[in-house]
Amino acid sequence: MNILVCGLGLIGASLAKTLKKNTNHHIMGWNRTDSVAKRALADGVIDETGELEAMMPKADVTIVNFYPEAIAPFIKEHKDLFKKNSIVTDSCGIKTKICRELEKENFDFYFVGAHPMAGREVSGYDNSLDDLFDNASFICTPCDGIPRYISDALVGLAQEMGFARTVVTTPEHHDEMIAFTSQIAHVLACSYVLSPLAPYHAGYSAGSYRDVSRVARINADMWTELFIDNKEPLVREIDDLVSNLMKFKYCIVNEDANELCELMKKGNKIKEEIG
Amino acid sequence: MNILVCGLGLIGASLAKTLKKNTNHHIMGWNRTDSVAKRALADGVIDETGELEAMMPKADVTIVNFYPEAIAPFIKEHKDLFKKNSIVTDSCGIKTKICRELEKENFDFYFVGAHPMAGREVSGYDNSLDDLFDNASFICTPCDGIPRYISDALVGLAQEMGFARTVVTTPEHHDEMIAFTSQIAHVLACSYVLSPLAPYHAGYSAGSYRDVSRVARINADMWTELFIDNKEPLVREIDDLVSNLMKFKYCIVNEDANELCELMKKGNKIKEEIG
Repeated sequence: MNILVCGLGLIGASLAKTLKKNTNHHIMGWNRTDSVAKRALADGVIDETGELEAMMPKADVTIVNFYPEAIAPFIKEHKDLFKKNSIVTDSCGIKTKICRELEKENFDFYFVGAHPMAGREVSGYDNSLDDLFDNASFICTPCDGIPRYISDALVGLAQEMGFARTVVTTPEHHDEMIAFTSQIAHVLACSYVLSPLAPYHAGYSAGSYRDVSRVARINADMWTELFIDNKEPLVREIDDLVSNLMKFKYCIVNEDANELCELMKKGNKIKEEIG
Repeated sequence: MNILVCGLGLIGASLAKTLKKNTNHHIMGWNRTDSVAKRALADGVIDETGELEAMMPKADVTIVNFYPEAIAPFIKEHKDLFKKNSIVTDSCGIKTKICRELEKENFDFYFVGAHPMAGREVSGYDNSLDDLFDNASFICTPCDGIPRYISDALVGLAQEMGFARTVVTTPEHHDEMIAFTSQIAHVLACSYVLSPLAPYHAGYSAGSYRDVSRVARINADMWTELFIDNKEPLVREIDDLVSNLMKFKYCIVNEDANELCELMKKGNKIKEEIG
């Protein structure tokens, strides 16, 4: 199969490296800054690079790896170049906005939203890894009207690439879950290190500080788009979190040891049971 | 030197194991449930066990490893048994309440509060480790009136044990910093997993969920005491955190991309600069 990877940053280049390592497909690569694609070719990360006009019409699968706002415009702009009946997918962290926008179009290819669930606190081609997706989930969010065999094919490719788990769901359910498992964790890590005491933590911190604050190392521009594009579910999670924090505060202020202990036992039980 | 370790749970037994591994002192051990002390003796974790009446009078250093509420009562109850001019210390995670209570007493030994900063999500003798304190900080909070050479001796012992860093500060400053680096992180992890979506995270989560939620595995009884004993600093941290979360919420609700991006850049910069 011919696979075209558009955008060779952290995620795009990691996908290309994974495809090269674990599959025998022919991997084409394109990047807005051409020198990066040339390096990827020289590094053996892709088999071919060149103009979109030459590569898109022969790609059976095209994976678009841009910031969220750039994905739908790119696909619409190049809609006449994609191979007929081919699969076009993306890798960004929100799905509803993109999938619901693109399903309105009358493409003669199939757009299937996807989210390979891994990342790093650093970005760009130089930080891409061929094992970034080991143990990771691949979430596939087919738009309405996509034939089952098409999403099956994309899931099959993800399995071939070595993703540990694949999930097929609606864009809305994806976004709701991601608000909880990923976005709020980033909001929270940033909010945490904004405490006036953060600059003085050295000598007073151990694993809890390290882990809870880790994802405060964030690509602010990209996450700004992701957060605003996922406004409702994310605000719901912030509200839930603040409400739970206020329960803790209330117990502590009132020295209500029983209720405080119950809250923690509940949290502990959930974590023990669900991991 | 003769060192007596009272309480052979996770922290006490890990301290005993570290002392045995890295020093040549004679280590005595005592545990409320005697069978644990006997096992520690059989395992070579301590050199001697027996009655407090026999061991305390010969201990140059006594380390008390109980839940916070039990420490001061234990020391006061046994005050006539401690060796004259010896050092008595503890290992619990709050210092002001204990240090300020004990400095009022007219002991003929020296009480110096201490906090070896490491832990695990599991507790008890069976989970103790001889390398739990590798790379950890040892914080020492001498009460008013403690001669400098006494706290120096305790810090020296911590260095001999292999702690990566030692800090000497006031009980109040310790508690303020711990509210931020440790306590709020636990409150936050528990609050996070109390979201209605937590039970459905599988397949939708990666490193962010794993790290931010890790310390929701918590010893609820112990942390209830720690939180209430450190009420003011911890409530201040909860207030700061909620206020920062509300700033994020406000930006997202109003789709204020600039301000949202600024908040994240600020968080990112702090994390990059201070680790």
